[in-house]
Amino acid sequence: MTASGPATLDSVAAHAGVSRQTVSNVLRHPDRVAAPTRERVLAAIAETGYRPSLPARQLATRRAHAIAVRAERQQDGISGLVLDAFYHGLAEAGQDNGLRVLLYAQPEDEAAEIATIDELVHTGAADAVVLTATSADDERPAHLRERGTTFCAFGRPWGHDEPHDWVDVDGAIGTGLAVSHLLDLGRRRIAYLGWPDDGEQPSTGTERRRGWREALASAGLGGAPVEVRSTNDAAAAESAVARLLAGRDAPDSIVCASDTLALGAHRAAVASSGDQVTVVGFDATPVAAALGLASVAQPIDQVAHLCIDLLTRRFEKPLRPAQGLLVPPVLHVPR
Amino acid sequence: MTASGPATLDSVAAHAGVSRQTVSNVLRHPDRVAAPTRERVLAAIAETGYRPSLPARQLATRRAHAIAVRAERQQDGISGLVLDAFYHGLAEAGQDNGLRVLLYAQPEDEAAEIATIDELVHTGAADAVVLTATSADDERPAHLRERGTTFCAFGRPWGHDEPHDWVDVDGAIGTGLAVSHLLDLGRRRIAYLGWPDDGEQPSTGTERRRGWREALASAGLGGAPVEVRSTNDAAAAESAVARLLAGRDAPDSIVCASDTLALGAHRAAVASSGDQVTVVGFDATPVAAALGLASVAQPIDQVAHLCIDLLTRRFEKPLRPAQGLLVPPVLHVPR
Repeated sequence: MTASGPATLDSVAAHAGVSRQTVSNVLRHPDRVAAPTRERVLAAIAETGYRPSLPARQLATRRAHAIAVRAERQQDGISGLVLDAFYHGLAEAGQDNGLRVLLYAQPEDEAAEIATIDELVHTGAADAVVLTATSADDERPAHLRERGTTFCAFGRPWGHDEPHDWVDVDGAIGTGLAVSHLLDLGRRRIAYLGWPDDGEQPSTGTERRRGWREALASAGLGGAPVEVRSTNDAAAAESAVARLLAGRDAPDSIVCASDTLALGAHRAAVASSGDQVTVVGFDATPVAAALGLASVAQPIDQVAHLCIDLLTRRFEKPLRPAQGLLVPPVLHVPR
Repeated sequence: MTASGPATLDSVAAHAGVSRQTVSNVLRHPDRVAAPTRERVLAAIAETGYRPSLPARQLATRRAHAIAVRAERQQDGISGLVLDAFYHGLAEAGQDNGLRVLLYAQPEDEAAEIATIDELVHTGAADAVVLTATSADDERPAHLRERGTTFCAFGRPWGHDEPHDWVDVDGAIGTGLAVSHLLDLGRRRIAYLGWPDDGEQPSTGTERRRGWREALASAGLGGAPVEVRSTNDAAAAESAVARLLAGRDAPDSIVCASDTLALGAHRAAVASSGDQVTVVGFDATPVAAALGLASVAQPIDQVAHLCIDLLTRRFEKPLRPAQGLLVPPVLHVPR
């Protein structure tokens, strides 16, 4: 920066004793400039503190150098921190790769979200989007592919035919770890508390349920596993588990598809039998920690970095085959 | 959009039968164009579906039409959802005002953060920044003012001389509501669990503590209020409150400066006396809800909208006097 304000292309050119066009060439087509001139211009850039304008670079490169991600409306809140960590990871990995991270407020529905993404990409505000909360009846991936919009999903393409870049956490491994932990504690009647649709179609819930079933079967306990379903609401989960614990099939432990469900299960367990029923949650939120429950932790920071990684490679090679990456979670056990 | 791709300035001009410069004038200096021509161009814009490129608009207006906000590193996590709601509110209010919201990953320290903000503003990626987590020894506001960077803080200018735009939540009202609630429950020995520095200098903690003291005094209970301090860590808070409850001054209730402290206080209360000691938290996080604790809720969505409001007015009138807005919280009481 000079006394008269930020350095410009012109002041760099004057400093280096070359034309404005030469400075521009050094920045955009360095191969077109002879090495000694290039050196002189780069030195002038360093000495003047010149930084190219982002909008100018965007126009020149026809790229926004930015990706967009949805800021969620508050829902149950308990698992919201997963996204908080995701935002930080995207911003951090984005900075390392010259990509800004733009937030867009969660629109009313999928159609409105697709329109929002179109607008961001069409106006040059973003080059790509990171989709969150994907599901089997998700219309966003197909629409984005049709429009040729670059994207990476946090979540598998659950049953969709056309492949795209995605990163996901292997939920089945997570509930498998939960079962192993309960077996280590001497539990044998290990129930599952899942969501209403788990098992109906490929989904996050289906995978988490599968991990529980397979781990029970591996332990020779796959005979007549007990399970109960609830919407992702602590009060509903509490009622469902209270009925289960009052019945003949009462389990000695419960693996849950979320910490919200685990909160309800924990309340029902405390009400029915003190702490005789062990509850394991999913997402390792502060709520699980506060209740002293073990819970499956998703490596969110890793997921965010991998999403940026896939997008960066996609920008470099738009036609490379779609890639999916599944990362394993770990189990957080309270001390 | 036409069959041959997105509409451009040229295709709009051809459609309207005017020059490219005329279309540009309609967009940037509508007063320079005769009304009938303006109408014709606007109709052509609507018919072709033309949307001006954001980078071009940024260059033309010398504005990024974007603001930056920090994505926090994960800390204790319990109160993180406050920021999650803040991001959504900023994105929503920003969209309503033609402002994008950019995230930057929390840098190592304040100096690095100032450099990051400089870079964002200097390169034209953002016009302004929303500062979070302000404190009395915060160097960011003075540096940003020196550089002429537009900003609005979520948090008061705690003891800083030079004024700037800010929005904050009145924590003293919050702890006052907590005391009223406890008085309604018949509690009389109402202690305070705060942070180590509360009361030393103007800060969030000082204000929360003041609200508790003043409410006790108003109720004629200001004689020898009992208080205890702890770093914002549940285990440390549990130890501090356990000592307090074992002593002669044992309170019948505790107002806490955060839900993290409230978690520790709750654990100590349960261990010492069942549920005889009532604990009230601050931030109304899912942890407080899960434990069945009342907690003070900050109107985060409102704060985000007001920050955008102040920034929008600042862009319009750069020289208007700095403005501070203090909004009241409410108390969330579990059903």
